[in-house]
Amino acid sequence: MRVGLDVGGTKTDAVIIDDDVHILARTRLATGWGVDAVGATIARAVDLVCGEAGIAREDIRSVGVGMPGQVAPGSTRVAHAVNLGVRELDVTRTLEPILGIPVRVENDVKAAALGAHALHGSGSGTMAYLNLGTGVAAGIVVEGQVWRGAGGSAGEVGHISIDPAGPPCRCGQRGCIEALAGGGAVAERWGRPGALPVRDVFDAADAGDALAVALRDDLARGVASAIRVLVLTADVDTVVIGGGLSALGDRLTTPVAAELEAGAEASAFIRSLRLRERATLLPAGSPAAALGAALVGRTTEEVLAHG
Amino acid sequence: MRVGLDVGGTKTDAVIIDDDVHILARTRLATGWGVDAVGATIARAVDLVCGEAGIAREDIRSVGVGMPGQVAPGSTRVAHAVNLGVRELDVTRTLEPILGIPVRVENDVKAAALGAHALHGSGSGTMAYLNLGTGVAAGIVVEGQVWRGAGGSAGEVGHISIDPAGPPCRCGQRGCIEALAGGGAVAERWGRPGALPVRDVFDAADAGDALAVALRDDLARGVASAIRVLVLTADVDTVVIGGGLSALGDRLTTPVAAELEAGAEASAFIRSLRLRERATLLPAGSPAAALGAALVGRTTEEVLAHG
Ligand SMILES: [Zn+2]
Ligand SMILES: [Zn+2]
Repeated sequence: MRVGLDVGGTKTDAVIIDDDVHILARTRLATGWGVDAVGATIARAVDLVCGEAGIAREDIRSVGVGMPGQVAPGSTRVAHAVNLGVRELDVTRTLEPILGIPVRVENDVKAAALGAHALHGSGSGTMAYLNLGTGVAAGIVVEGQVWRGAGGSAGEVGHISIDPAGPPCRCGQRGCIEALAGGGAVAERWGRPGALPVRDVFDAADAGDALAVALRDDLARGVASAIRVLVLTADVDTVVIGGGLSALGDRLTTPVAAELEAGAEASAFIRSLRLRERATLLPAGSPAAALGAALVGRTTEEVLAHG
Repeated sequence: MRVGLDVGGTKTDAVIIDDDVHILARTRLATGWGVDAVGATIARAVDLVCGEAGIAREDIRSVGVGMPGQVAPGSTRVAHAVNLGVRELDVTRTLEPILGIPVRVENDVKAAALGAHALHGSGSGTMAYLNLGTGVAAGIVVEGQVWRGAGGSAGEVGHISIDPAGPPCRCGQRGCIEALAGGGAVAERWGRPGALPVRDVFDAADAGDALAVALRDDLARGVASAIRVLVLTADVDTVVIGGGLSALGDRLTTPVAAELEAGAEASAFIRSLRLRERATLLPAGSPAAALGAALVGRTTEEVLAHG
C-alpha cells in the first residue's frame, strides 16, 4: 500500500492505494502556510488517511507528495512553492525520520499526470496531462512514467508564444499560451475582484460583456494551441485536461472544442489529427493528483506488473 | 556491417558502417524519378557502396532507407514521397528479394535524427533534429531511438502556428513555423525564379532589399520558435539543425542566434533555458542522414552495446 498527497495552496488531498492502484481511502485537510506548517500538514495527512483506511503506518511502502514548485529530476527537494509559502523544503529529509516510511516528492503537475494516466490513460501509453490553473503546464506520460527530459522544462507549454501581438506574459514574452489561458493572467486582464475570477469572466461573457467574451475566446485559443503543440511535438495519444479551471466543465470544453473544430475546418492536416477526440476533461473531484503522487517513484517493473 | 541510404529528391547518399558505427565507405548517385527508378536507385546504391568498401553483399546485415514521405510506425512502406514521384512503395517487399538482405524504411527526417544523434548526440540522450528544407519538421531521439509517438505526428513542429497574423501555410493554417521558415514558403513569398531561392533572399537581404530582410527575419523567428517549442515541450538537451538550408552555415545561425538572444533578454525564464548553447548546426556535407538510415531498426540492446 502507498500513500499519495496532493498538497495544494488551500487544501491537501490524500489517498491510500493498494498494489493494483485501487483507492482504499481518501481524505482532505487544510494546508498550512510556510515550510513548518506544510511539513506538519504532510505528516498529519498520512496519519489521517491511514486512520480512515484502518491501516497501520508500518504497512505503507511509500509516501508520494505532489507539490506546486520546482522539483529537479530525482531530487528530494521542492523549491519555489510560492503558493505554499515555501522557498525550499527537503521533503524526504524532513519527513522520512518523522514517518519512518520512504518519502518522495514530485512537481504537482507531473504527479497529476501520472494519476490521470492511471485513471484515463489510453492503450498506446503516451498521454499528456494539461493543467489549467493559475498557470498552464503539462506533464507527459510515456509507458507509465513521467517524461523527464533533459533539464526539467518538459511540458512547459505555457510559455510557448503563439501570438507576437498577444498580451504580455509574466515570463517576459508576449502572447504565451499561459498569458491567454492561465487563470492568473485571465484574472489580471479582467481586473475586477472576485473569488473565482475565471468563472466571473465566463458569466459575464454569457451575459454579453465584450471584454469577457474576448478573454474567453483567448482562453479557448490558448488551450486549443496547447493541445496542438502537445500532439504535434510529442504526438501524445490523449490530452487529459485538469487543474482548477477544469471545474468549469462544459463551459470550458465547449469553446475549446469550437476552437479545435475551426482549426480542423481550415486545415486538412490538422483535421487528420482528430484533436477534438483526443482531448478529454478530468471529471470534477477526480483523485488524479493525489493518486498520481502515490505512484511517484514506482519502478518500470511495478508499472508493468500492476498497470 | 549495415548499409544506410538517404534517398533525396535529386541525389541518394549511401554509407556502409561497422558495428561500432564507423563509416567504412560512402558514395553518392543521382536519384531516379518514379517508383521503378527509385527502386533501381536503391539497389544500385547498395551495390555501389559495397563495391566502394570492397565488401560482399552477403556480409551486410541490413539496409536502411531514409525517404521523404510518410512511413507509419513499423511499416515497410513509404507513402506520398512526392519529391521522388512515388505515391506508394513497399520498400521492404520490393527490395528484399532483389538484395537478399533485410531492408527497412524510415522517414528521412527521423532517419537523419538518428544519424545526428550518433554524430552529435549529447550524454543525456534526448536530442531533437530540426530539418530545415522545403518544409520544417523535427525528429526526437530518446535513448538512441526515434521517438515514435502515438500516430506519426511526433516532431511535426512545422505546423504549429506562432502568429495568427502570419502568412498562410500550405496546410491551411496561418503563421505556421513552416510558413515562416520552410524553404518552399520562403521561395513562394520571394516570388522570383532561382535555383537557390533562400540563398538569393539572404543575398538580397545583405544588399538591403526590404522584402528579403523581412523574409530573413521571419525565417529566423520561425527557427527560433521551433527550438523553443522542442525544448519547452519535449525538453530535449540539444537541437541539431540540418537539412538543405543548413548549407547557409553562419548566414543562417547568426540571425537565429540573434533571435534567441532577443528572446532571452526579454524573459528570465527563457534565458534560463540557454537555448543558444543547446542549438547546433550539422556541418556541411554531414553523412547524418545516410548514417541514421543505417541505424534504423537496431534494437535497444544493440544501441546500448555499440552507442
Ligand atoms: Zn510566458
Ligand atoms: Zn502549416
